Amino acid sequence: MAGPSKRPAARGQRSAPLGAAAATPFLHLETEQPAYGPSPAPLAGAELPSFCYHLGAVAPKTFNGGTAKEANVEGFPVSDKLAGVYMTLEPGALRELHWHANAAEWAYVIEGRCRVTTIDPLGLSEIVDFGPGDVWYFPRGHGHSIQGIGPGTCTFILVFDNGYFSEFGTFSISDWLGHTPADVLARNFGLPVATFADFPKSEVYIATGPVPAPLPQEARPGSLNQVPLTHRYQLLAQAPERFAGGTMRVVSEREFPISSTMTGALLVIKPGGLRELHWHPNAAEWQYYLKGNGRMTVFGSNGRARTDDFAAGDVGYVPQGFGHYIENTGDTDLEIVLVLNNATYQSISITSWMSSTPDLLLATNFKVPEATFAAFPKGEVVMPEQD
Amino acid sequence: MAGPSKRPAARGQRSAPLGAAAATPFLHLETEQPAYGPSPAPLAGAELPSFCYHLGAVAPKTFNGGTAKEANVEGFPVSDKLAGVYMTLEPGALRELHWHANAAEWAYVIEGRCRVTTIDPLGLSEIVDFGPGDVWYFPRGHGHSIQGIGPGTCTFILVFDNGYFSEFGTFSISDWLGHTPADVLARNFGLPVATFADFPKSEVYIATGPVPAPLPQEARPGSLNQVPLTHRYQLLAQAPERFAGGTMRVVSEREFPISSTMTGALLVIKPGGLRELHWHPNAAEWQYYLKGNGRMTVFGSNGRARTDDFAAGDVGYVPQGFGHYIENTGDTDLEIVLVLNNATYQSISITSWMSSTPDLLLATNFKVPEATFAAFPKGEVVMPEQD
Amino acid sequence: MAGPSKRPAARGQRSAPLGAAAATPFLHLETEQPAYGPSPAPLAGAELPSFCYHLGAVAPKTFNGGTAKEANVEGFPVSDKLAGVYMTLEPGALRELHWHANAAEWAYVIEGRCRVTTIDPLGLSEIVDFGPGDVWYFPRGHGHSIQGIGPGTCTFILVFDNGYFSEFGTFSISDWLGHTPADVLARNFGLPVATFADFPKSEVYIATGPVPAPLPQEARPGSLNQVPLTHRYQLLAQAPERFAGGTMRVVSEREFPISSTMTGALLVIKPGGLRELHWHPNAAEWQYYLKGNGRMTVFGSNGRARTDDFAAGDVGYVPQGFGHYIENTGDTDLEIVLVLNNATYQSISITSWMSSTPDLLLATNFKVPEATFAAFPKGEVVMPEQD
Repeated sequence: MAGPSKRPAARGQRSAPLGAAAATPFLHLETEQPAYGPSPAPLAGAELPSFCYHLGAVAPKTFNGGTAKEANVEGFPVSDKLAGVYMTLEPGALRELHWHANAAEWAYVIEGRCRVTTIDPLGLSEIVDFGPGDVWYFPRGHGHSIQGIGPGTCTFILVFDNGYFSEFGTFSISDWLGHTPADVLARNFGLPVATFADFPKSEVYIATGPVPAPLPQEARPGSLNQVPLTHRYQLLAQAPERFAGGTMRVVSEREFPISSTMTGALLVIKPGGLRELHWHPNAAEWQYYLKGNGRMTVFGSNGRARTDDFAAGDVGYVPQGFGHYIENTGDTDLEIVLVLNNATYQSISITSWMSSTPDLLLATNFKVPEATFAAFPKGEVVMPEQD
Repeated sequence: MAGPSKRPAARGQRSAPLGAAAATPFLHLETEQPAYGPSPAPLAGAELPSFCYHLGAVAPKTFNGGTAKEANVEGFPVSDKLAGVYMTLEPGALRELHWHANAAEWAYVIEGRCRVTTIDPLGLSEIVDFGPGDVWYFPRGHGHSIQGIGPGTCTFILVFDNGYFSEFGTFSISDWLGHTPADVLARNFGLPVATFADFPKSEVYIATGPVPAPLPQEARPGSLNQVPLTHRYQLLAQAPERFAGGTMRVVSEREFPISSTMTGALLVIKPGGLRELHWHPNAAEWQYYLKGNGRMTVFGSNGRARTDDFAAGDVGYVPQGFGHYIENTGDTDLEIVLVLNNATYQSISITSWMSSTPDLLLATNFKVPEATFAAFPKGEVVMPEQD
Repeated sequence: MAGPSKRPAARGQRSAPLGAAAATPFLHLETEQPAYGPSPAPLAGAELPSFCYHLGAVAPKTFNGGTAKEANVEGFPVSDKLAGVYMTLEPGALRELHWHANAAEWAYVIEGRCRVTTIDPLGLSEIVDFGPGDVWYFPRGHGHSIQGIGPGTCTFILVFDNGYFSEFGTFSISDWLGHTPADVLARNFGLPVATFADFPKSEVYIATGPVPAPLPQEARPGSLNQVPLTHRYQLLAQAPERFAGGTMRVVSEREFPISSTMTGALLVIKPGGLRELHWHPNAAEWQYYLKGNGRMTVFGSNGRARTDDFAAGDVGYVPQGFGHYIENTGDTDLEIVLVLNNATYQSISITSWMSSTPDLLLATNFKVPEATFAAFPKGEVVMPEQD
């Protein structure tokens, strides 16, 4: 990690020695997270694994016209509920028509512009352009394509609600038609066999071609843009929630009805700022660090806490219900795209919890005088003031 | 496979050499479908397994009055989401009162007539007769019985929304009462212990008895036929959707409200006809071939396609989201019963997708001139005209 | 088992010899429950495992102010869908602020009184007192605390909708703050670092303190009791359903809207009485035996039945869809708390099923004369008269 850090890294991965907690009889840290049970193996040990994956350091697969690299359970085993892909497309480059059999797709456009086409089971289609800060959502199994339309490179991050997803295990139209005999295609489309002679025989993945013409301002009679729920949400255009230490924009099914399995958010934490201690009762969280330098600490119960440093290009993950907080450790804004695998946004902050609890109970709980809590915040803080 | 075939079988299991795709760097076919992950092991290899199970060739278990044989993951490992049973009952033969702890049951009557009884958790019951082309649905765990009422043998196919289902792991009333001490039965029913002296001590499965009297035309006051949702849908009585190359009838929760976990369909493909390239975004598909001869090709991404030939009595399976098409390779109609493990019917056809996509994009995607697509169908075809 | 029993224990675990059923060709008992498949391994054998766990015989973890002991898949492998904890709190003892990442919590207060605080993702809180016979429900991941308020010990049973739950794998506020650096806490709360100098460094679990003052009779303006759905249901205050052999109270989502994943029940079976043969199509069942002595027989299909004796303090379990009945084998009332892992209560009783089935069909099914069934009950019995 190259980024500046306000606190010595010597804090290490755990903020308390393991032995201390292990001595507490009812924690039985030897077995701790049960060896049995349907949770990811990396979470079963006495120490938590890293929740950071350096996607920025992974060499992308390169194609004529674009690049792609992915984070899934293969390289980042703890991320069993969500996966992601970082992709770039030059003007005219087309991420070909394809679908994903095992996941829905959520995306955030980082820079540049692209055009998306979609097909749904009712045969309805949408063709729509995306720019920086725009979000799309494709339900599991729906066909789509993405084409850079310039000027400049279009860069975006894709998030899938299945950690076992692989972008390279996707269903592409060229791969499909290329593995279908030409006589079957001829019968399917009612055309001569020769029509398909020059079709590709294997997966194209990214093709290059001319940038298409601008979309018409007004929908023409009979145009294809007739889906009941649009696939585009302009997240950066949303007025953010403003806190002392930063801003947050959230896009759930409430704001973006087609997004029926995921919620996204854009977090900006000011230098010295903090996204306070909180957890999400109903979802795991997948993070892409857009800008700046940060540090996340994840609390995993039984005396286990893990701190990782993050720079732009890194991916973070928080299992469902695990406590966590994020610090901006740099001199510039820390910007993060978050995706939760639930269409409803739920979060509980430490200040919300404690301020709704009687001071006497807190005093008993923490074994300190009741007066200690008089100065505590009254209500949720979310992002406290910078240092 | 005995059936006639219009194309040489030499096409084999894959329509393109594996090596060709393997050379494409981003497919990394060596590992391909990730070794990790919660999908059936048979799909993890570099080649797809067979999607055909010759249930017709399996010797049935025979009973006095009937026969049964099943297809589940034990013999057909890829079918992890759905299983099936082929059963026959002579007039008066009773598939005894029973329930399934781990699956709902969908059925299609092939020939003959039978009477069904049901019980639900509200204590409501339905007694209703079924004939050829009728469908039933029993929610998971609801009690039921099936009795042949003649004339002739009643033959039907049962489909369960759990590939781990076993018809021979079912909960039968005779097995239950036979393993309950007579003194407990006496107390349960408020009757003398002697009442149960002659009850069977182990599972009856199929019993034989007289054909019951016809059901009354009019429900009598106090009769039992008072369930809010009927268990019967007359699929063959439905007006089919008609296409150039065949017909299709679909029964989902929309047409048959009690069917809350499965959708069924009856497909008739004319000789030389084709159910075009399509996929189901939301469901796996289980097939029973009723009549004729067919060939199905399943596309599994990463350059993998698998072609199998089917005859009457065979079972087919398509994993959720996998592309597929079915050809009639015989000289007579090909008739197939399909069941999808979702109450909502969803399907996307290649012609629907391509016709909603701009020709310029298709030209870029397939690296052929834009004019190529002028002749393509405008809209969904489903079943194109025969050869 | 110390309790008196009206029938010799020599009945053993199975009420019929295994060999008898094994000889029936279609049961193939050698393999029986398939070795493949996603059901708990203990259910896969030729004999059923015990469905009784002697939680009463387990030594509790003891703390200053309280005790706790748990039943989950570690000690009771068949209980994969539900787990439980038995806990006691002295007056003033506080089960500290915590949440469960992997399960919702349902509870029944056996004796004494306690005060509960809750926090939800909207920041809404409820503070409410519980006494004997009261039930609470906390959605998965919602923060809460429980404090004994006397007089005397408060004793309660907690049930979780995840058999892999461990009370000792829970997320406690002291553990969390204790593993967060004081400078981060200072920034989070906008307070001096010194504020946190005396906070505990590891999990408190149960703390002791003064009993809080009574709650005000009337909600004051601005008070915290503003949750839309209360967490308390007074089950013992419910008028029970009365049967010849006992009573039953049921609390599902219909009676207690926040309880969106579980249904509870309180069963009282009179001496010599019986909860008749029945099954739950939609749920597994977890039982805590409060008082008296009982015997449960579980029917697991394929000729498998298992009988266990239960005394106060024991835990029972019934897999989803498995047939079962419970006898009172003692001289006093048998009282049981039941929890089902479904918000909707569903049950089908043998008398409901048989009385809705034509006598002729029953005669065919059981191979006895039709007249046998004339004396059978007309309608559901639930709890027949005592011996």
